[in-house]
Amino acid sequence: MERIRKGEVRALARAISVIEDSAPESTALLKSLFAHSGKARVIGLTGAPGAGKSTLVDHLAREYRKQEKTVGIVAVDPTSPYTGGAILGDRIRMQAHHADPGIYIRSMATRGFLGGLARTTNDVATALDASGKDIILIETVGVGQDEVDIVRLADITVVILVPGMGDDVQTIKAGIMEIADIFVINKSDREGADRVEREIRAMQTLAIRKDQWTPPIVKTVASEGKGITDLAAVISNYEKFLQQKNLLLKKKISNWQERLVEMLRDALLDRLINERMQKGDVARLAADVAEHRRDPYSLVEEIVNTYTGLGDRGIG
Amino acid sequence: MERIRKGEVRALARAISVIEDSAPESTALLKSLFAHSGKARVIGLTGAPGAGKSTLVDHLAREYRKQEKTVGIVAVDPTSPYTGGAILGDRIRMQAHHADPGIYIRSMATRGFLGGLARTTNDVATALDASGKDIILIETVGVGQDEVDIVRLADITVVILVPGMGDDVQTIKAGIMEIADIFVINKSDREGADRVEREIRAMQTLAIRKDQWTPPIVKTVASEGKGITDLAAVISNYEKFLQQKNLLLKKKISNWQERLVEMLRDALLDRLINERMQKGDVARLAADVAEHRRDPYSLVEEIVNTYTGLGDRGIG
Repeated sequence: MERIRKGEVRALARAISVIEDSAPESTALLKSLFAHSGKARVIGLTGAPGAGKSTLVDHLAREYRKQEKTVGIVAVDPTSPYTGGAILGDRIRMQAHHADPGIYIRSMATRGFLGGLARTTNDVATALDASGKDIILIETVGVGQDEVDIVRLADITVVILVPGMGDDVQTIKAGIMEIADIFVINKSDREGADRVEREIRAMQTLAIRKDQWTPPIVKTVASEGKGITDLAAVISNYEKFLQQKNLLLKKKISNWQERLVEMLRDALLDRLINERMQKGDVARLAADVAEHRRDPYSLVEEIVNTYTGLGDRGIG
Repeated sequence: MERIRKGEVRALARAISVIEDSAPESTALLKSLFAHSGKARVIGLTGAPGAGKSTLVDHLAREYRKQEKTVGIVAVDPTSPYTGGAILGDRIRMQAHHADPGIYIRSMATRGFLGGLARTTNDVATALDASGKDIILIETVGVGQDEVDIVRLADITVVILVPGMGDDVQTIKAGIMEIADIFVINKSDREGADRVEREIRAMQTLAIRKDQWTPPIVKTVASEGKGITDLAAVISNYEKFLQQKNLLLKKKISNWQERLVEMLRDALLDRLINERMQKGDVARLAADVAEHRRDPYSLVEEIVNTYTGLGDRGIG
């Protein structure tokens, strides 16, 4: 813990691996990490594949370094033609910041997490927070519900669009527009940037947010570093807005509500399967269902009633 | 039930709405639907946005109609530049088959499902199965884990690729190649179709499937109806392969294993939150965590111990 809190890269990397692997010691580790967390600002950035997220995030990180803030980056990208791309990209990006101990980048593999990708990503963010990073940037591709959940649970959510992508290709998930606190139009030197801006504006006239905030639109050309200072300023404005209206705590409470429910769901299942039922029980019951000897809906009720104390006549 | 089993469209549509909404009567409904299900072959089709899935699925449905088989289609598409596209597309597609009562198409909204998209989709497939459809086609965009889970749980999984999309844009999820029983290269009159085929072949030399099946590659031009008969034949071949090797039941058992676990997870949480805890409990505890008065990891253990009988000293 001491070494993580001092920001030692190796200790931090090992802690994150323990969290990713759901190793037996991970709960104890997370408890102590949590005690030292809560100071960082978590910014989630998402957008279509090819929107230039990594480049934008790298430049934004440099901008924060100029402001003497330390930065942790968590990159989650489940889309890739085949596998392996993310890990390679990670190494290349690490090299670009190699000389700077104030930036730490971690790519997340995206499969096989007990407890889901969103929860693991948040736990990794807690580790970065505890290691003393001032700003945590979480980037994901905005294509699946998992990815939307990840950035939705950040303090501030940035949605990145690009001009010139047809309806077919601008494959962001329906509903992602609604989670944006700030819009970025990246590659804004391309034709069509104004059209994207008009579309966002048109959408905004349809729905007014409960908090009365109108998500501003920042135009950037991340590859040339253009617009990054503006973006940092707009993020800072929104942060001030949240603080003035006392909304940051409110948002954190509603985020924790969701996270607690997820954690409970996993903890209950884990106890049932691993401590109450016998190994092979589920496989045997699945065979009963597959061969239509039992219906799965009654079966689930029966298991809950028999094994847990959460049954209708349970003793809970 | 009688009206659903006779294949009456209105009864079926209402049943599906009850399932989608997780209405109180949905469990009872699903129990009786399950009793009449188990005859249909479920085929999952997935691919990148813009791969021409709907067109392909529509033509495949027509092919099955020629073989005098009835067809149910479940279309799940969470990606869309803004909202509304799926519903519109659904109506247009329904019209194309309007005269034919042997085809039923249903688009799924993709948000806000209790119990997850994959589970709801499977339950809808059960309803179509009980209504007497011989073939159920489930189509999804292969971008998020949810979507991959949906087609992975079909009897037969078809992955649709297209030539000429850069690495950046061929945004299928890493790992999706591995779930294919059959590959389709759609729009195969475009340049690059051979390159895609070579890439699939190259990948296949790296990993041999446990069941020794080498997923065949079918080239189609769905918009012109080309290659659809081939695709139906290849699907039928794979079905025979599964039956000869007695693999269909094996696959169904392993699918039900996953589905049962998901159902248990949701049922346990539902009982805990709605029957054991008080309304507002979670919100109050979330505030404690957000203000760092408690750590969430210990809290979850405590709740499980206190409320469920699944605790370490529980009475289960």
